Amino acid sequence: MKHVVLLLSCQDRPGIVAGVTGWVAKIGGNITDAQQHTDHHDGMFFQRVKFTPPDGSSIDDLAERFRSVAGELNLSYQFCTLPYRPRTALLTSRHLHCLSDVLSRVHLGDLALDVKFVASNHDDGREICEMYGHQFRHLPTENADSRAKHEADLLRLLDSRQLDLVILARYMLVLSKQIVEPWSGRMINIHHSFLPSFVGANPYRQAHDRGVKIIGATAHYVSEVLDEGPIVAQGVVQVSHRDDVAALTRRGRDLETTVLASAIRAHLEHRVLVFGNRTIVFD
Amino acid sequence: MKHVVLLLSCQDRPGIVAGVTGWVAKIGGNITDAQQHTDHHDGMFFQRVKFTPPDGSSIDDLAERFRSVAGELNLSYQFCTLPYRPRTALLTSRHLHCLSDVLSRVHLGDLALDVKFVASNHDDGREICEMYGHQFRHLPTENADSRAKHEADLLRLLDSRQLDLVILARYMLVLSKQIVEPWSGRMINIHHSFLPSFVGANPYRQAHDRGVKIIGATAHYVSEVLDEGPIVAQGVVQVSHRDDVAALTRRGRDLETTVLASAIRAHLEHRVLVFGNRTIVFD
Amino acid sequence: MKHVVLLLSCQDRPGIVAGVTGWVAKIGGNITDAQQHTDHHDGMFFQRVKFTPPDGSSIDDLAERFRSVAGELNLSYQFCTLPYRPRTALLTSRHLHCLSDVLSRVHLGDLALDVKFVASNHDDGREICEMYGHQFRHLPTENADSRAKHEADLLRLLDSRQLDLVILARYMLVLSKQIVEPWSGRMINIHHSFLPSFVGANPYRQAHDRGVKIIGATAHYVSEVLDEGPIVAQGVVQVSHRDDVAALTRRGRDLETTVLASAIRAHLEHRVLVFGNRTIVFD
Amino acid sequence: MKHVVLLLSCQDRPGIVAGVTGWVAKIGGNITDAQQHTDHHDGMFFQRVKFTPPDGSSIDDLAERFRSVAGELNLSYQFCTLPYRPRTALLTSRHLHCLSDVLSRVHLGDLALDVKFVASNHDDGREICEMYGHQFRHLPTENADSRAKHEADLLRLLDSRQLDLVILARYMLVLSKQIVEPWSGRMINIHHSFLPSFVGANPYRQAHDRGVKIIGATAHYVSEVLDEGPIVAQGVVQVSHRDDVAALTRRGRDLETTVLASAIRAHLEHRVLVFGNRTIVFD
Repeated sequence: MKHVVLLLSCQDRPGIVAGVTGWVAKIGGNITDAQQHTDHHDGMFFQRVKFTPPDGSSIDDLAERFRSVAGELNLSYQFCTLPYRPRTALLTSRHLHCLSDVLSRVHLGDLALDVKFVASNHDDGREICEMYGHQFRHLPTENADSRAKHEADLLRLLDSRQLDLVILARYMLVLSKQIVEPWSGRMINIHHSFLPSFVGANPYRQAHDRGVKIIGATAHYVSEVLDEGPIVAQGVVQVSHRDDVAALTRRGRDLETTVLASAIRAHLEHRVLVFGNRTIVFD
Repeated sequence: MKHVVLLLSCQDRPGIVAGVTGWVAKIGGNITDAQQHTDHHDGMFFQRVKFTPPDGSSIDDLAERFRSVAGELNLSYQFCTLPYRPRTALLTSRHLHCLSDVLSRVHLGDLALDVKFVASNHDDGREICEMYGHQFRHLPTENADSRAKHEADLLRLLDSRQLDLVILARYMLVLSKQIVEPWSGRMINIHHSFLPSFVGANPYRQAHDRGVKIIGATAHYVSEVLDEGPIVAQGVVQVSHRDDVAALTRRGRDLETTVLASAIRAHLEHRVLVFGNRTIVFD
Repeated sequence: MKHVVLLLSCQDRPGIVAGVTGWVAKIGGNITDAQQHTDHHDGMFFQRVKFTPPDGSSIDDLAERFRSVAGELNLSYQFCTLPYRPRTALLTSRHLHCLSDVLSRVHLGDLALDVKFVASNHDDGREICEMYGHQFRHLPTENADSRAKHEADLLRLLDSRQLDLVILARYMLVLSKQIVEPWSGRMINIHHSFLPSFVGANPYRQAHDRGVKIIGATAHYVSEVLDEGPIVAQGVVQVSHRDDVAALTRRGRDLETTVLASAIRAHLEHRVLVFGNRTIVFD
Repeated sequence: MKHVVLLLSCQDRPGIVAGVTGWVAKIGGNITDAQQHTDHHDGMFFQRVKFTPPDGSSIDDLAERFRSVAGELNLSYQFCTLPYRPRTALLTSRHLHCLSDVLSRVHLGDLALDVKFVASNHDDGREICEMYGHQFRHLPTENADSRAKHEADLLRLLDSRQLDLVILARYMLVLSKQIVEPWSGRMINIHHSFLPSFVGANPYRQAHDRGVKIIGATAHYVSEVLDEGPIVAQGVVQVSHRDDVAALTRRGRDLETTVLASAIRAHLEHRVLVFGNRTIVFD
């Protein structure tokens, strides 16, 4: 543990910054970065404090010592450690560019994920997955029966591996509430449109038919309502009448991979706070 | 008349380009720019041909001489002239940045509009309008009665001035079908969102509540259904959790002015072809 | 005085944030925004703290009371007030879009500048300037003699009006060290290229000849070396082979106006700290 | 051969479009896309005509039949076929993200390259290269002697494999004129800056020290002068004072991969015409 990140939120009132930073100074920590945000409309205060803890202190120690400060200030908070390398599952379907991109970044050291397995309702992803030395699980969904089995298998699989993070890398099935709920704030999806435009299936076809001049991609935490979860990152690119659905699809690929990677990176660096259906993403 | 622009569309089939360019060569014109687009999905062909006509020829001459070619090839087409300085009305309400920006561009020679009048349901725009020497018409809408009168006055005003173009520069009322219909393809609106996201009122409030990381503006030809007309230009800008509704509103201003100006320019240069609810905007 | 902004910089070491925020709490201020930046490479710490001061306190009071804290922590700092409406001079030449845009924003309340006068080496700007009710000073430079007189008149003019800010809105002459020096950090220029590309004259011609696919604009504080001062804001736009020098010039206009306005806004909100030849621009 | 692309350039004069499109119609071809560009400043005309050739015709047939038209109109031209899958060599050094990205795109069918080998002055790329089943050649350059041998080996290697295309995927050595010259217009480099800013070594360090607010990447055909060749594609991303050299380097990666891929795609689709040190890149 080189650094500790303290993420906190509370009703805004005077004295919070002084209270928190004073506490860090008191325990002998050194703040290396601090960012805060006040939402004046909702009267909320959010802060991310990154500090080097005193030698030998554990997360549990820190949490214990922080308790009284947090109580006085009535804070919601969590302590996180850096560097962070979460136990991660990737789900995918037939479009493999996001999977391939994430695995390449992991391989090159650009994203610190401890990939436990990749699962898919199609077998197409096996090759790239095994090339990189990861376990691949094919959970087919050819018919209604297998669809239920797919969900049950997936649920068991996600439960059994002590995962910290689930990434939907162009996984094209809608997950049930039962699967999604436990992963609140820890399951990232990439949707291939500039949400809230073009929710649901075939967003590039929808974008083409509406004649938009810009397309986008959106990475968000998954919530129970499809494509409605808190947005972490978005990207856009200019298009024109020359781009048919196939061209939009191809041009969207680079967006999807970079936007997904950007959201994963923010998550890994503990830069994201969720408030209702919105996010605070510190720089 | 320095240049002629021929805009045409038809079912795609061999021989159109050769037929049209051959005709221009035959009458002694010189093509200075030609762009085409084939929509393979809908089987349609679109072309913009800019040429210097032979000395002394009028638009009517050219149309007359082109008739047989157009008939053979079964073309929809129109001849336009360049430079073009349309008789223009501007409608606005209380947010004056788009109006001010368009008038400034007209004044500096950046947009060639022959501004016939500015009308508004508020008197706020009068000052800037009269500073630039344009006529201002205040058509109030304080109550239901005056709303009907506003529409009637506006209808009469638009009818009476032999206008070529109507620009809605943050005009905040919804126009009736009766007013909109005759101006198909000649009435440009700026909507302060990245359509089709956030149709209707208070798009910046909607954007804030959805927690998007990018906001946009959309210039489109007005159709009978609010915010549904063919899109001519869109622009976007990155935002963050730090931007409250007021900040989004302020940051959106620059987008709105530049996107609206860009759409007006495309219209003035005869670079826009409407096909169904989409546009082909040649470069 | 509704808010106070404290901008500070110092060698990075533990305890600064706690010391500063503790001081604000102690005097009864309430921090409404705080942002900090640590430059690990240069070992420097920078902070912007915005707070509501206790009732009745003046800037001088605050500075007096802060002195001992600043001494202990060895800080460089300045106290600023918000809202801020600096006494401002605008300089321009023949390209009037930046001048017109700034004056329009001032008129609409988008930029809070107290415009004292506009000066130019050409008379072209008089009309727009006087339309908005500002004083215009024509300081011609037809020949070498008048060039020296222009500088002398300008120097006197800038000195005589107790100005806080000078904006070069496409002022095309190179100012001497004598004029520039006293305005360090308070004279903003817009250069029509993506610096450090295309320093000096005719950047759009240079951009065209190099065949770049993107052009830019740069707002920077003026330093003694032409186009070398600390950059406050930059913007870019995609271009193509279709854009000749005239088209680049036209497309660059919108960039120049929005980038200049963005830099002015950052300055007005006391969000800019200069460190060497770089800037920290807080969000 | 499904389609033929005819790329041509000549002095601008009346009749070229009609002559070329007439010829395609005469031989029974069907134009599916045509784009042209007139450079009025240099008096040059450029065109890309994509057509389906008559059944059974070869490129040689077409060139033969076109000769008289080309002679009359004094055209420079080349016929190309689509789909096109050039025999390609990739050169790299230690930064492997561009290599990994290109190989991933080839694997997923996004870029149609027939990769003949990857060569590098470091052995680091071997793993990713062999994972994808490609030949890897390590040509070390530990000292001055081996540097000369590296060049000689590389020259021989490039000569011996009947290559169509060479891609420098973050290959960090400067190639001699002898190697570069034969590959004019067929050797693509990615430079990690927004050229012409920050030519040469350590552009991210240079960008940091200049304090720019936007960084870029540039893909260009390699010419004899370092970083001076014709630009095919550029991309940019906003940065801030928070980005130190390491952060700029990391953020630049996504730019480099997408800009390089974009340039390769334009090359594969025969959309690039080189004129002097500029390019026409048709959409």
